[in-house]
Amino acid sequence: MAELRQDIITGHWVVVATERAMRPTDFVKPCIATPQEDGRDCPFCPGHELMTPLEVLAVRPEGTEPNTTGWQVRVFPNKYAAFETGEEVAPGTEMYPRRPADGSHEVIVHSPDHTKSLATMPPEEIELVLRVYRHRYRANREDPHVRYVHIIVNHGRESGASIEHSHSQLFGVPLVPNLVMQEMAGASWHQSRRNECVFCRMVSEELLAGQRVIAKNRGFVALAPFASRLPFEVWILPRSHQESFDMINEEQLVEFAHILRDILGKYHQKFNDPPFNYYIHSAPCDGSEYPYYHWHLEVVPRLTTPGAFELGTSMMINITTPESAADLLTGRSERGRGLPQNMH
Amino acid sequence: MAELRQDIITGHWVVVATERAMRPTDFVKPCIATPQEDGRDCPFCPGHELMTPLEVLAVRPEGTEPNTTGWQVRVFPNKYAAFETGEEVAPGTEMYPRRPADGSHEVIVHSPDHTKSLATMPPEEIELVLRVYRHRYRANREDPHVRYVHIIVNHGRESGASIEHSHSQLFGVPLVPNLVMQEMAGASWHQSRRNECVFCRMVSEELLAGQRVIAKNRGFVALAPFASRLPFEVWILPRSHQESFDMINEEQLVEFAHILRDILGKYHQKFNDPPFNYYIHSAPCDGSEYPYYHWHLEVVPRLTTPGAFELGTSMMINITTPESAADLLTGRSERGRGLPQNMH
Repeated sequence: MAELRQDIITGHWVVVATERAMRPTDFVKPCIATPQEDGRDCPFCPGHELMTPLEVLAVRPEGTEPNTTGWQVRVFPNKYAAFETGEEVAPGTEMYPRRPADGSHEVIVHSPDHTKSLATMPPEEIELVLRVYRHRYRANREDPHVRYVHIIVNHGRESGASIEHSHSQLFGVPLVPNLVMQEMAGASWHQSRRNECVFCRMVSEELLAGQRVIAKNRGFVALAPFASRLPFEVWILPRSHQESFDMINEEQLVEFAHILRDILGKYHQKFNDPPFNYYIHSAPCDGSEYPYYHWHLEVVPRLTTPGAFELGTSMMINITTPESAADLLTGRSERGRGLPQNMH
Repeated sequence: MAELRQDIITGHWVVVATERAMRPTDFVKPCIATPQEDGRDCPFCPGHELMTPLEVLAVRPEGTEPNTTGWQVRVFPNKYAAFETGEEVAPGTEMYPRRPADGSHEVIVHSPDHTKSLATMPPEEIELVLRVYRHRYRANREDPHVRYVHIIVNHGRESGASIEHSHSQLFGVPLVPNLVMQEMAGASWHQSRRNECVFCRMVSEELLAGQRVIAKNRGFVALAPFASRLPFEVWILPRSHQESFDMINEEQLVEFAHILRDILGKYHQKFNDPPFNYYIHSAPCDGSEYPYYHWHLEVVPRLTTPGAFELGTSMMINITTPESAADLLTGRSERGRGLPQNMH
């Protein structure tokens, strides 16, 4: 039961997805510490396969039946889908446009082990997860309702996760989201004026300067972006130009798994298993070509709480400079105050 | 020590304000419950006036000295200013534009009583706070560095508040923030196509339909906007067209205080003193005229945590329909599930 509603003033679309709704009492004092789940009631644990919708993909030994135990990674539609094709919605009006929230919404469970996390899993297991990302990305981009594929992780309750067992979500979105449109517009502008990819330029400038680089390998670089919106924000970019995530090759998959695990491990170590979010920004799949776009992953630990300044302006106040974030994450400095004089 | 940095890809400006920064250890496990403050160490309590920068305004008995006790409402510059005129910043580059975070940042303490909250204060005291808003708005809009005056409240730790004692903040921002620009563009478009203010039109449509109206008095209406970004979001709009908050008159001030107190009281009652944010959207003060704009206050309880879907798209998933939010807040329904059939 989801629909898209447009704010006629800002033009923003909002997903109103009421199957996820709770009773008012569920909202009371949401930040009270709750006891840790132990997997006994966890719908993502092995043995509970029938507590979820039927799987659409699983990495499991040949010969085992779908929706039984034995899998390593498992994918199924989200029970409380934000996007789902075929729902009817009331007609919109001139002042109040609405449309169906067509598309898809899948859950990707990373491991049968309830206690495992991406920050502590071996890179080989992360590689498997990324391989599943690529598969599901390719499958969903073929859906004619889907114009943008958004793959994300919410880790920890304070990151927005409602289920503790480590998992990703894939959203097949029926429009190109605002933030992606803005990146696309900037990349297109830069390409036409400077005749280069703005992300490629950033990668080479950052590798040259070094100051904001946190990790690199043959295929990827991880850096604290100059205009980081949140403390310790990191972008992981392929070093060679690549428009869409699903163009990633075998060699890159391995390198991507290693650098992602490296960054998540650094967060885990420095901030004691903090809540975090990541998402992949990739070219839309709406039938157009976006040769000037360059996919990447953005990851951020949730260490601070944006307030009414941010809510009312869309402008972030970041209390840590990216330079000091890079210093701290690389171990160049044990201080995180980020005062510019630290860097000299 | 603050500067503005621009993301060359999206064009977004970010405030990097490192005086607010902490040591890395301060970020560890930020959501652990902390003991309630009791005012003994509170810099906003009476008797501690010298723990803050010197006051720029206070409502206090005639004859009492500034920065002594006796005040009812007190205003001073934020010790950790996000905007402050006169800081030097390193020169930007083509890829990495930056500029000084000129402007102002003030704290408005609502009451000498550490335990009072806007949700429980008598409307007469809120009226006094609003009167101070108007005074400081007018003073700050005259600052040649300030192009937008943003007045906000963060209430409760989970709303982003770092100090418990009830207070507002006024930001004198040296540019017109993105979200305000977007509202301005929509209002301008509507004015030129339909020859009417889009907010006036919304007010009259909503009053006619009634379904999303939560409260009203002679001067104001409070409603759950059609494309609410968050559960139980409420907008309070003046019923007659008014471009900028500082045009509010005496009679309106009284009515605004009552309806604001009414909404905050409803949140307090339904959600047991939830964290909340509000901010005032008002026409920029950058020298241009904005006759098509219509100031209003947007308020939202912080009941849910946006995750990586929202971070990566700027698109919100709202799990409560505004119609059921209005039903719950007005007492028309005790259920908050928001399924459309509830409304028939």
